[in-house]
Amino acid sequence: MKQEYSPVTDQHRIATDELNPPPRLLLGPGPSNAHPRVLRALATPQVGHLDPHFLALMADIQELLRYAWQTDNDMTIPVSGTGSAAMEATVANLLEPGDRILIGINGYFGTRLHDMAQRYGAEVVVLHKSWGEVFTAAELRAALEKHRPAVLALVHAETSTGACQPLAEAGALCREFDCLLLADTVTSLGGVPLFLDNWQVDAAYSGSQKCLSCPPGIAPLTFGPRAVEKIKRRKTTVANWYLDMSLVGKYWGAERTYHHTAPISMNYALREALRLVAQEGLQQRWQRHAENSRLLQQGLQDMGLSCHVEEQYRLPVLVTVRVPDGVEAKSVTSRLLQEYNIEIGNGLGELAGKVWRIGLMGHNSRRENVVLLLQALREIVGSR
Amino acid sequence: MKQEYSPVTDQHRIATDELNPPPRLLLGPGPSNAHPRVLRALATPQVGHLDPHFLALMADIQELLRYAWQTDNDMTIPVSGTGSAAMEATVANLLEPGDRILIGINGYFGTRLHDMAQRYGAEVVVLHKSWGEVFTAAELRAALEKHRPAVLALVHAETSTGACQPLAEAGALCREFDCLLLADTVTSLGGVPLFLDNWQVDAAYSGSQKCLSCPPGIAPLTFGPRAVEKIKRRKTTVANWYLDMSLVGKYWGAERTYHHTAPISMNYALREALRLVAQEGLQQRWQRHAENSRLLQQGLQDMGLSCHVEEQYRLPVLVTVRVPDGVEAKSVTSRLLQEYNIEIGNGLGELAGKVWRIGLMGHNSRRENVVLLLQALREIVGSR
Repeated sequence: MKQEYSPVTDQHRIATDELNPPPRLLLGPGPSNAHPRVLRALATPQVGHLDPHFLALMADIQELLRYAWQTDNDMTIPVSGTGSAAMEATVANLLEPGDRILIGINGYFGTRLHDMAQRYGAEVVVLHKSWGEVFTAAELRAALEKHRPAVLALVHAETSTGACQPLAEAGALCREFDCLLLADTVTSLGGVPLFLDNWQVDAAYSGSQKCLSCPPGIAPLTFGPRAVEKIKRRKTTVANWYLDMSLVGKYWGAERTYHHTAPISMNYALREALRLVAQEGLQQRWQRHAENSRLLQQGLQDMGLSCHVEEQYRLPVLVTVRVPDGVEAKSVTSRLLQEYNIEIGNGLGELAGKVWRIGLMGHNSRRENVVLLLQALREIVGSR
Repeated sequence: MKQEYSPVTDQHRIATDELNPPPRLLLGPGPSNAHPRVLRALATPQVGHLDPHFLALMADIQELLRYAWQTDNDMTIPVSGTGSAAMEATVANLLEPGDRILIGINGYFGTRLHDMAQRYGAEVVVLHKSWGEVFTAAELRAALEKHRPAVLALVHAETSTGACQPLAEAGALCREFDCLLLADTVTSLGGVPLFLDNWQVDAAYSGSQKCLSCPPGIAPLTFGPRAVEKIKRRKTTVANWYLDMSLVGKYWGAERTYHHTAPISMNYALREALRLVAQEGLQQRWQRHAENSRLLQQGLQDMGLSCHVEEQYRLPVLVTVRVPDGVEAKSVTSRLLQEYNIEIGNGLGELAGKVWRIGLMGHNSRRENVVLLLQALREIVGSR
């Protein structure tokens, strides 16, 4: 290549220092801190995305994801993006223009599903509930009967509210009404009891940066046989190339056909995160999350603070705490960050200014983190 | 949460070993090996995606990307996915249903653009050329005159063929025909001369895993003022939530509004990769890539092997070498991988079985790598 070139301009050639982030303890709605073993895996020198070694590792990831989700679904893969990309992948593949989807909106992420589904031409019907509440089986039955949707979407663990939507009955209801059940398990996978197959959930997605303690940038996705069947019967092309599972599935399936370059390092990290889940065991892991959350909730109660969600629907991994009268919510989160290097979350949407969101997820669900946070809160908010 | 749960099944709870990949030298079409400093940055413990520290780091990345691309474009960001996601982001945002796009197809990636553009309802017109050739200014002028597209898409560095499409005249031509110029710079960014603003390129995307020596999983994207103007004038919503730049741009712009959780570790890595580019300097970097490629090409010629692309359009960073008669292409790449831990690429599409693809990208563009590869090839293919 011999061509005449313009001179290089140095206008944007800024001088920067080596990365030196503050040592944050991430006890907000996510990301949580990655496990040290996950960070080590992340930094492992890569092989190519079609290397026999990588292809073997892909199978490990798929199998360990099946364990974490308690599913036999063949189509279980990590999407090459963050949780929202996996969310969009379910919507884009399961819905064809004109398909009706019923979305339970009791927080921020139901709204996001609504926005996405509209972009794919679906007819969206919505079931609303206050932020922090959950839908009863009777409410779901009535809505299914009335709207007869092709897909019912529910958020299992609403990160914006701290509520855990029971799913055990929803799957059977969906079979009764010949509808697919899609579940957002971003904040529940690896942290709270989740039995995709027993609950008859047909499709689900998750994130890596919550209870799996892996950095964000890769996102689990699974489709059960009924979902796969609906995708196979599609009359229209998926209106999204990157997330078209008929193409992505050929790379993750037996063919190993190149689609896009997989994020190799993120797959390394996710594999290690899932190994940690398998080594600890799901029951032990769920129990650990529950115990540390009880410790947190007791401490909050002792300070005179109360939780936003009714106890039986309260997520152990993400607790929403009511901001007491006279306290400016954001000034507390700011001080926690600046003076203690602890991140917790502010409220979103309906709950903005009204709650804090405290995450005890994955590797971060440890007694010492609870003790430290409670003491820092005591020092800032004061004993009441 | 008190509920009755099914017992956990251990069917998919496989035992796995710690990650222990073979030490590959990645001299194929990408990914290239990540620079050790990039891997170190990748493994740095994270802060949150709305942490003031992260927001400052985002600005560094944007500025360093502008340097690498030689552009002043305000809208210059990394997309939270691999290069194909950034490709799809340009198509999804720049095109509305019915818009005409003219795509130069002289390799695999033009075909991918074609597939994507159709999914967004664009009217696609195609200009074909043999794999390995490039389009002349006269050919582009004739096609623009005939088809009057809203967007002309050209692949600057065709990773499937090793050809470098001259862009210096295409920008001016596009202005003349009131058309936007979209360039695929996945394999050129940081490796070969590229002057987005001087060449009047309106939109471009790239990958992290080629000449930037960062792992795949994050992908640069830039829109110039004319592209931003077209996006602002859109009458329809972008049919893709994850890649909708009107939303993503608010997180990367002054507002810092949460859209999706950024892949924090990948952003750490990309920042370090771009710091390496700024520290070396673009001219020095381009020269290094050119010199090591000359060494490679001379060595190949000495072995009696010839390059597929005409010298003046030959990409220094990705050289396609013709497979000699009587040699089975894949047996050579297999032996290189198995016996020497070196990955090079096989031919794709029109060039399957006919060429090997040798990448000397970013950190991998080093004299010792050229010397090793040539010697390994000599031992396998034999001196001719």
